[in-house]
Amino acid sequence: ILNKQLHYLHSNKVAQSLKPSDDFIPRHLGNDSKSTQSILNTLGVKSIEELMDQTVPASIRLPADQVCKYKGREIQAIHSETLLLAHMRDLANANKVNKSFQGAGFYPTHIPSVIRRNVLENPNWYTPYTPYQAEISQGRLESLLNYQTMITELTGLDVSNASLLDEASSASEAMFMAYNVHNGKRNKFFLSKHIFPQNIEVVKTKAYGLGIELVIDEPANFDWSKAEEFCGYMVQNPDNLGTITDISEVAAKLREKKVVVTVIADLLSLAITKTPGEMGADIAVGSAQRFGVPMAFGGPHAGFMAVKDEFKRKMPGRLIGVSKDVHGDKALRMALQTREQHIRRDKATSNICTAQALLANISSFYAQWHGAEGLKAQANRVRNFADLLIQEFKTIGIKSVTDSVNHFDTVTFDAVASGFESSDSIISDFHKYGINLRRVDDRHVGISFNETTTLVDLDEIIEIFYDLKSKQTSAGFLSEEYYKNSKFTELPANLKRSTNFMQQPQFTEITSETQMMRYIQRLADKDIGLTNSMIPLGSCTLKLNSAIEMIPITWNGFAGVHPFAPKDQVQGYMQLIKTLQDDLCAVSHYDYVSLQPNSGANGEYAGLMAIKRYHESRGDFHRDVCLIPTSAHGTNPASAALCNMKIVVVDCDENGNVDVADLKKKAEANKDRLAALMITYPSTHGVFEAGVKEICEVIHLHGGQVYMDGANLNAQMGLTSPGFIGADVGHFNLHKTFAIPHGGGGPGVGPIGVKKQLAPFVPGHPVIPVEGKSDLTVAAAPYGSAGILPIPYAYIKMMGGKGLLASSQHAIMSANYISKKLEGHYKILYKGEGGRVAHEFIIDMREFKKSADVTEGDIAKRLMDYGFHAPTVSFPVVGGLMIEPTESEDKVEMDRFIDALIRIREEIREIEQGKADKHDNVIKNSPHTLKHTICDEWKHSYSREKAAYPAPWIHTRGKIFASVGRIDNVFGDRNLICTCPPVTDFL
Amino acid sequence: ILNKQLHYLHSNKVAQSLKPSDDFIPRHLGNDSKSTQSILNTLGVKSIEELMDQTVPASIRLPADQVCKYKGREIQAIHSETLLLAHMRDLANANKVNKSFQGAGFYPTHIPSVIRRNVLENPNWYTPYTPYQAEISQGRLESLLNYQTMITELTGLDVSNASLLDEASSASEAMFMAYNVHNGKRNKFFLSKHIFPQNIEVVKTKAYGLGIELVIDEPANFDWSKAEEFCGYMVQNPDNLGTITDISEVAAKLREKKVVVTVIADLLSLAITKTPGEMGADIAVGSAQRFGVPMAFGGPHAGFMAVKDEFKRKMPGRLIGVSKDVHGDKALRMALQTREQHIRRDKATSNICTAQALLANISSFYAQWHGAEGLKAQANRVRNFADLLIQEFKTIGIKSVTDSVNHFDTVTFDAVASGFESSDSIISDFHKYGINLRRVDDRHVGISFNETTTLVDLDEIIEIFYDLKSKQTSAGFLSEEYYKNSKFTELPANLKRSTNFMQQPQFTEITSETQMMRYIQRLADKDIGLTNSMIPLGSCTLKLNSAIEMIPITWNGFAGVHPFAPKDQVQGYMQLIKTLQDDLCAVSHYDYVSLQPNSGANGEYAGLMAIKRYHESRGDFHRDVCLIPTSAHGTNPASAALCNMKIVVVDCDENGNVDVADLKKKAEANKDRLAALMITYPSTHGVFEAGVKEICEVIHLHGGQVYMDGANLNAQMGLTSPGFIGADVGHFNLHKTFAIPHGGGGPGVGPIGVKKQLAPFVPGHPVIPVEGKSDLTVAAAPYGSAGILPIPYAYIKMMGGKGLLASSQHAIMSANYISKKLEGHYKILYKGEGGRVAHEFIIDMREFKKSADVTEGDIAKRLMDYGFHAPTVSFPVVGGLMIEPTESEDKVEMDRFIDALIRIREEIREIEQGKADKHDNVIKNSPHTLKHTICDEWKHSYSREKAAYPAPWIHTRGKIFASVGRIDNVFGDRNLICTCPPVTDFL
Ligand SMILES: Cc1ncc(COP(=O)(O)O)c(C=O)c1O
Ligand SMILES: Cc1ncc(COP(=O)(O)O)c(C=O)c1O
Ligand SMILES: O=C([O-])O
Repeated sequence: ILNKQLHYLHSNKVAQSLKPSDDFIPRHLGNDSKSTQSILNTLGVKSIEELMDQTVPASIRLPADQVCKYKGREIQAIHSETLLLAHMRDLANANKVNKSFQGAGFYPTHIPSVIRRNVLENPNWYTPYTPYQAEISQGRLESLLNYQTMITELTGLDVSNASLLDEASSASEAMFMAYNVHNGKRNKFFLSKHIFPQNIEVVKTKAYGLGIELVIDEPANFDWSKAEEFCGYMVQNPDNLGTITDISEVAAKLREKKVVVTVIADLLSLAITKTPGEMGADIAVGSAQRFGVPMAFGGPHAGFMAVKDEFKRKMPGRLIGVSKDVHGDKALRMALQTREQHIRRDKATSNICTAQALLANISSFYAQWHGAEGLKAQANRVRNFADLLIQEFKTIGIKSVTDSVNHFDTVTFDAVASGFESSDSIISDFHKYGINLRRVDDRHVGISFNETTTLVDLDEIIEIFYDLKSKQTSAGFLSEEYYKNSKFTELPANLKRSTNFMQQPQFTEITSETQMMRYIQRLADKDIGLTNSMIPLGSCTLKLNSAIEMIPITWNGFAGVHPFAPKDQVQGYMQLIKTLQDDLCAVSHYDYVSLQPNSGANGEYAGLMAIKRYHESRGDFHRDVCLIPTSAHGTNPASAALCNMKIVVVDCDENGNVDVADLKKKAEANKDRLAALMITYPSTHGVFEAGVKEICEVIHLHGGQVYMDGANLNAQMGLTSPGFIGADVGHFNLHKTFAIPHGGGGPGVGPIGVKKQLAPFVPGHPVIPVEGKSDLTVAAAPYGSAGILPIPYAYIKMMGGKGLLASSQHAIMSANYISKKLEGHYKILYKGEGGRVAHEFIIDMREFKKSADVTEGDIAKRLMDYGFHAPTVSFPVVGGLMIEPTESEDKVEMDRFIDALIRIREEIREIEQGKADKHDNVIKNSPHTLKHTICDEWKHSYSREKAAYPAPWIHTRGKIFASVGRIDNVFGDRNLICTCPPVTDFL
Repeated sequence: ILNKQLHYLHSNKVAQSLKPSDDFIPRHLGNDSKSTQSILNTLGVKSIEELMDQTVPASIRLPADQVCKYKGREIQAIHSETLLLAHMRDLANANKVNKSFQGAGFYPTHIPSVIRRNVLENPNWYTPYTPYQAEISQGRLESLLNYQTMITELTGLDVSNASLLDEASSASEAMFMAYNVHNGKRNKFFLSKHIFPQNIEVVKTKAYGLGIELVIDEPANFDWSKAEEFCGYMVQNPDNLGTITDISEVAAKLREKKVVVTVIADLLSLAITKTPGEMGADIAVGSAQRFGVPMAFGGPHAGFMAVKDEFKRKMPGRLIGVSKDVHGDKALRMALQTREQHIRRDKATSNICTAQALLANISSFYAQWHGAEGLKAQANRVRNFADLLIQEFKTIGIKSVTDSVNHFDTVTFDAVASGFESSDSIISDFHKYGINLRRVDDRHVGISFNETTTLVDLDEIIEIFYDLKSKQTSAGFLSEEYYKNSKFTELPANLKRSTNFMQQPQFTEITSETQMMRYIQRLADKDIGLTNSMIPLGSCTLKLNSAIEMIPITWNGFAGVHPFAPKDQVQGYMQLIKTLQDDLCAVSHYDYVSLQPNSGANGEYAGLMAIKRYHESRGDFHRDVCLIPTSAHGTNPASAALCNMKIVVVDCDENGNVDVADLKKKAEANKDRLAALMITYPSTHGVFEAGVKEICEVIHLHGGQVYMDGANLNAQMGLTSPGFIGADVGHFNLHKTFAIPHGGGGPGVGPIGVKKQLAPFVPGHPVIPVEGKSDLTVAAAPYGSAGILPIPYAYIKMMGGKGLLASSQHAIMSANYISKKLEGHYKILYKGEGGRVAHEFIIDMREFKKSADVTEGDIAKRLMDYGFHAPTVSFPVVGGLMIEPTESEDKVEMDRFIDALIRIREEIREIEQGKADKHDNVIKNSPHTLKHTICDEWKHSYSREKAAYPAPWIHTRGKIFASVGRIDNVFGDRNLICTCPPVTDFL
């Protein structure tokens, strides 16, 4: 029907006059034709085309027949919102959602409705960015601190980060940490073979990239005589077959040998079993998925990592810490950022940038909702289901290989020994009943219970077994009689959790939905999201995340699917994925797209690994030099380091362009070892460098491959493309260019596009091979965070080629508009040859440091008083602010933002001219909180109104007041606290 | 499966230990066992049972076997949230959602996702109450003002109210207005027979109740010689068959005769057709449903009414008006409340209290989203569909009876004349294709197009007709060729809209989703909802509206159904309705429940009509006296007046009880004419009167029937019941007791329960007879606002009998807790015999008027400074505040509320003692806005901190600042403006 409809629309005029009147394009673009015209007038151009001609070098402009088209791939648009929604429904319905008992790290769970509605489906939660501007982010910072507290409490360890990408990559980060603890001097890492295969595979990839020697074996076979060659040792509890092992003694011995011990743990099991901390592990990792986050065909979910205190400065990812503000009040912010890639670059503890904030928050609200008692009850419940099944298996004659006592939620049986043909045969028998079991291997089948399991489900499973074994159903399973005789086993004392957990008020005081709803609301009220303000963060592309794009992701047809569901049950997803891959190829002119990487940084890593393997496949084992311009994002060198590449930095010239001469020199100098160039285009300086094609040619000439960082793809769509320019591989940030919301710090999706020579080396998956490939895995699920792919899919379909082109055109137009209006007030740092900036640009604040002791950071804080979220601070230029309005902001909002910046310039002038005090001024004291603006004693040399309402339009536009004053970062890093203090006043 | 699950759970202990751990009851109740115990300690009772014994008179306590049970009806509970959700999904799936072309006032429409997510599914919009406290309600007041503006612009009339219950009742209100314009002296009313049948029937009911003589005929047959006997004249455009008529000339003539002319209009058609205003009508009414509100099996939707300026003071319902606040800033509030029932009682312009605020807001956001151009395009589009069909009908040989030019979206044809057996036969032929057509009568069938119609749909319809007529499909309908030859007709000049509309910035400046989202957010940020604060409005019962209860209502299986869909397509709804009726009987001990009334007031009206008809059926035509105690809500006398009843007021004694002696006297005195007593129980004074059974007996003794107003049912559930006490009929406010959110002023649902003697006289429906009844209709749809019945259904199922009992117990407990804690600070006005209040109570502020010139209204405003929504002001006792916490508020929140009131008492004392200025004090100047608290010049004798942060916990709890200062009501009523001024600064 959709096709029929689309056919009509294209066929004739009368039909077109009858087409649905709900085109998405004008809704996505901030400016309508009237305000667009007014902007173009300001810019002194007649048309947006003319502006593009001035901005994008002719040498890289796409010919008309390649605009969002590539090798027969062309975006089939569905511009109508309602047709799109109907189409999404069809796709969702094309997935058959069986009851899943597949487990292996993914479990059906119930997201409490109050959390679903008020967090997952609430733009106040899903649209904010990473809380770099802490003063207007205290809401999600508090929630992330709750999350960290929950993780430390459940794992029995000291410090948790604020999430990683998933369980498998968390495991690989743990290995990297162990490696770093020994400064790379111990080169072996031991991995139990009873770890979920996707975890093994992702660890393998990382070990391979770093050159770590992995020993995968039975724990019993660990060679103690060589213990000191090992940096780390890793097991999983419950293991791949469902058995829990107390490793306390082993851990103690390993500790003596300074081998770092990691346990991959099931978060729910920790409510009732001995914790990794109690067992003596140094690190615990895992997934918080089953705490209320839908399986969603694999993600996104929060991966967690908790460590002993001594390792905290080696922690990958973001860490929320408690500090105080200038008034001495408690205030939260991201702590210890000196560990992170944006500061330490290739020396960083990991390349993790975007993580899983939204999902971490959901899991933590979930834990608050259930509390310790609720989680214990749930854990006991799933264990009891497994217990009943194990007992019943004995009666039926099914051979369980899971320990009949030391188990949690999972029972694995030997299908062949139980008299079935194979694991596949019994699995397909169960499919007939709408039930998915886990294929562990040829003969083993796993059944994992979960929060959603009911007695009816267990009953059905047991009945099916009886049937299959042609036995009479046990007299009255589930009858009164049956239960009189049945008892649950207990975990042995050494495996039982003996410690209390989550006794902080955060986890005990919310018992009603009203309290939960108000708590969620109160936190959201503190934060700036796209619901309140433009978030002009350069390089981050905070465009509209439309409601319609978000609606399908919570449908059961998408949310309810296990990532290892058989292909014939996921036809909707398969169609969506294939189309999305093709559409991304059409936009980027790459030949193939892998959707597995679940963040931009992970995409970089996967892309560089592909390059590495490509060279190796040609015998070029020595190619390990990666050229990276100075302007590059910190993730670039951090990712290259993970592939053991040698980073050679290339200079930039005064115009913000890569210094081609320097590049040539360095490429030439390293020509035998040249592996890759990493380049961002347009550059992070906001410039369309004219020399980019030449740059690519130089690299190719010297045997290297070009990696193009896709963060700035929003300036390219339909105008040029990475593939057209000459890139061989690069990631897309679907959470920037393609409308996935930032979630307050994740989720993201960072697929990579590759030219055909690299296609054989993109990520595969050991459980569900991807295009036949099962190695180089970088994420737990075959298609990464598949559950949010409906968002970019919907965005691309509703925009179509012409809409994507319009997105880039408008994004560039709006950046040029703001830049033009700020000219004369601020120094615009870089421009292209045509005198235009790209979709973002940098204003330079360095002069004010001298003239008024005002820094770029001060201005960022002062913008909060105007109700705005700051632009990107100090990246890529220290002392600069990078502004990116995106195509979704309208002129009225931009004009207010411009006005705010111009007024701030005046405020600086007042300091420069001595009219305002050098220390006690509106800028240095910003942001001004309500509490301190309304306090009785106002001790400042300026007025309260000037502090809080520095522009008249603030009254009508409204603003989110910063909920704390300027935060003392140093204090917090020095006195690091990363869990909830026992506050009683938070409600 | 559900039944199996429930069976297990009841069957044995082991099974119970495996039941889902997501019971709803503890989530709905604000207090857990710990805080409950602490409250009981404060109250000096050992158990909640003991407290009940002290509170509810023994004489009316239900015996154990009647607790939420009645005559074999017993609530089958589903306590688990997840099982409930699965069950709701089953019910939704049991409705077959055909494509509906049935029209007749209900049309498929698309709610833009940004509005669905951010308004309909957002507790900030759906949980607030009617904006009586204007200063913390400016958000929805602005949106309702937009709505009124939209209605006046589209209808071409001067003043619109802020919604009525639906189109049919709006028509009946128009008749009542015409009747009132003539002060009841013209007793005839003319109704075109070409009005939708449900509109005719609801007008009929009202005419019958009021004793108006209705003439229903062809407009051409209007007897001009008797024109001056008619108070009003009403037609519908487009009419029942789809034809539009220009009544300009008729209207002009009628105007000369002072006959009030009403046009029932289709809101979408008004975008392109001549408006009622332009035709000379005095009143336009209709439904705003097709502006983005799902059909939802009949409702809720906003009914609209617009009138000429001269009638504005006669307007039924609520009117939002522009005024100014104490600072001179523009401020909105409900205007001209002197017309309303709570002031004018039986002299009111109508009995409308709860209206359809949420739906009006959705429709108005929808209009903003589409703008005038968008609406015109849509209107033209549906007209063009009809046009193509009419043209094609000629080819196929189908006989249209709709004017081939003067039509809008609807084509009606004569099935028999077209060669079909009957209307039923062709309708069922179409059912096979999943298409519903409208059965107009035995031979006529209607097809109405709508926003969601696509060319593919039209194509399908035409193909089916060809098929049925065994003709070859017209060569290439929808082919290029076809359209070359086809043209659309144009409306004749006299029927075309010539005036521009909706040119205010509100309707022109929002073009992008980002703008829309921020606008919605900015409005919501100004208002207090249950997301921010308890809303302790006595008599209004603002309990938790849980997210899970709200989730199903936007599912297509519930939302997408036309109210006239055939029974076999609505089995899910039928099961839900039947169960809900039975469950309400189980709670109330009535014998039958009618779900049609769509507000409490409409329930009163339906109930009194049932009493009237009951008496008449027994030959008691003279029984027309209705006894109403002084404490009654204003809707009671207003409803009685609509049934032409004579109201006799019964006194209350000093304890807040009905003065039984006075009652006896008046019942005795009127015994031959006694129709009814209307009584609220527990009384609006918050007292369980011990004499209530006796009161009922007295009424019965004298031949009367007892109507029990159900507003306070939240104090009765499981403890006592109306039926048990002796009531014969009464409404339930499902939007109070049964968790339907108040929507900021509606929707509500006010079903009535009746004892069996009244069952024959409850509302039926002319199109879809209800239990065989087709008269006494009070709403447009057979089951009223059926679309939100899933909410009370879910609530009842999740609570079960024991949960409902717990609700009432906790509601009473919490009211007693607050009352106890306030004792000694304020005078508690009324208590029951055991010294306890019911679920609400009144504190008396009258003494402060003298001692400190402080009124109850002042205290209400000052509470805003503490972050609280005020209790009910001046009802039922002038000078009192009535406090009702409900069972969903927790002790911590109540303690803050208590603390706020105690602090306010101190503030009063400061005035009394001369420590604070009599005029310039925190109370008189409340609420304090941000703008004026942060202004440079603070001219008050107290500090800013005292103004805005009078209690320390406000900083952590947070608060919504009043967005305007104290509003000048008199100014606004004197200078009445009820539409948007052309403000440009609202974004
Ligand atoms: C230029 C650039 N490259 C890479 C990244 C990393 O992407 P992600 O945060 O998705 O890992 C970013 C993120 O801001 C970026 O701006
Ligand atoms: C006692 C009482 N009766 C009747 C009503 C009218 O109910 P509704 O607003 O649903 O029409 C109310 C509303 O507040 C009320 O409090
Ligand atoms: O179907 C839903 O919209 O959840």
